[in-house]
Amino acid sequence: MMARPLKQRAAMTSDLILAVDGGGSGCRARLVNGTGVLAEVTGGPANLMAGDGRAPFEAVLAVARDALATAGKAPAALADCRAVLGLAGATPDARSRFFAFAPPFAETCIVSDGYAALLGAFGGEDGGIVIQGTGAAAAVLVEGRLTEIGGWGFALDDFGSGADIGRRALRAALRAHDEPGAPPPFAAAVLKAAGASPQTVMDWAQGAAPRDFAQLAPRVFDAAEHGTPEAEAILARAAEETARLVRLCAAHGAERVAVLGSVGRRIAPMLHADTAALLVEPAGDAMNGAVIALRQGLGHCA
Amino acid sequence: MMARPLKQRAAMTSDLILAVDGGGSGCRARLVNGTGVLAEVTGGPANLMAGDGRAPFEAVLAVARDALATAGKAPAALADCRAVLGLAGATPDARSRFFAFAPPFAETCIVSDGYAALLGAFGGEDGGIVIQGTGAAAAVLVEGRLTEIGGWGFALDDFGSGADIGRRALRAALRAHDEPGAPPPFAAAVLKAAGASPQTVMDWAQGAAPRDFAQLAPRVFDAAEHGTPEAEAILARAAEETARLVRLCAAHGAERVAVLGSVGRRIAPMLHADTAALLVEPAGDAMNGAVIALRQGLGHCA
Repeated sequence: MMARPLKQRAAMTSDLILAVDGGGSGCRARLVNGTGVLAEVTGGPANLMAGDGRAPFEAVLAVARDALATAGKAPAALADCRAVLGLAGATPDARSRFFAFAPPFAETCIVSDGYAALLGAFGGEDGGIVIQGTGAAAAVLVEGRLTEIGGWGFALDDFGSGADIGRRALRAALRAHDEPGAPPPFAAAVLKAAGASPQTVMDWAQGAAPRDFAQLAPRVFDAAEHGTPEAEAILARAAEETARLVRLCAAHGAERVAVLGSVGRRIAPMLHADTAALLVEPAGDAMNGAVIALRQGLGHCA
Repeated sequence: MMARPLKQRAAMTSDLILAVDGGGSGCRARLVNGTGVLAEVTGGPANLMAGDGRAPFEAVLAVARDALATAGKAPAALADCRAVLGLAGATPDARSRFFAFAPPFAETCIVSDGYAALLGAFGGEDGGIVIQGTGAAAAVLVEGRLTEIGGWGFALDDFGSGADIGRRALRAALRAHDEPGAPPPFAAAVLKAAGASPQTVMDWAQGAAPRDFAQLAPRVFDAAEHGTPEAEAILARAAEETARLVRLCAAHGAERVAVLGSVGRRIAPMLHADTAALLVEPAGDAMNGAVIALRQGLGHCA
């Protein structure tokens, strides 16, 4: 009968913060307290829109447990953590689903991955970000007011994302297959990477998740570096989307823009001077931003 | 004990042919015998790739029963029919799934919707077709040899299809929503047609089928007729795809091309002279073609 009051007191006096940055291909977690970083780990996909929301919930729990273990804390310390989750797909419905699974933290706050990255990139100050990872989105903070741009998901848009790059590579390969004569080497290599034949690729694509398409993106970057015209064309198209999002950030009042994400970092150097002039390096990452969100009371909490 | 031998004899002597033309938004069936058309009815979506294949199987059965009833035949006459099904998504895997549901016809033959339409359009003679309905594909018959082009499905391509037109309308509306200031009327109308807000549209799109997107296509055609630039741009893009497919038909040896499907029929008049010169009117429809396929033994039968 003693355990419960003790535990509750611990929860109230603990300064443990678990910051999670989660997207369609994976998540990262950082455990901090007042003195610094205690652990940093990576985990599975945590886009809140995935399926019925159970998978991203489990991914967050797994990465939280892993962070505690890495820091040498007991599993029960989960209940002492204030968790702040910067997650892709954090629509109101998706957030409600997440809270309905009853997260075991002392407090759970959710912000969008974009908001977390934005707060981290400029240390809570004004600015704009474009993120291109598995998905693509942008966000702007002007006089403390957040405007989210894009991020409409793979089914409708997400152009310039890793998933879009992979989808375009497959499409180009299938279109090459439709031409008379033998397909060029790039088309053959892309089809081989995704399945045995155009028919199997088509069947596969029916049920494939954005992260499945995104797994083809590194191959496109590599082929472009080797001067493959089809790959260069796909990346040029992605860079157009990056530039469009950078311009939208400026149109919403951002005077500086950071281009983030595994794909964005590789595309940023391709931008033309007009948009490149707006670009800055980020000051911190999305987990820094999540902690700022928690401290400034900016998330949706339960 | 008399019923069974009588029924079997009927099956062997019957000249009933049920021809079905099925796609992602619906199907049509025509019941014919040696003397002519007995019934013609419409039914639900019958793309063989849909879900686990049960829904298109049920759709075909329903439309078959409806055709028999319309012709004044008893339900048991199903077992007397030779059914020939020209269906979208008729990949080898999808056909096997269909046969595994044990279709109750005397004989069941499956051809792709494209092949059926091609045989119908040129009465079994050489030519090429572009079909743009809910999906998009092309097919060419040269010296009796079939080449299927495109038809890679909504997840990867199907550009110029009704589903693609609807998806592009939603994307344009969401992108307009991302711009500073009030969205133009077309964007507002499209979002309203698909859901209450950009967030609900995004959630909706996650689980939407091609035919759900395609339901927005007529709205785009109507808006283009009223001079709405965003709608005109979407249809111009679809017409580029039509032209690309027409040129591919020619590259594969077709000397004449019929542009078919609810969307294709409306786009064909928009084509430029270079591709328009190849166009001809179809001689017959996909159900005529299915009957030709059956009589020439061209389908996959069980």
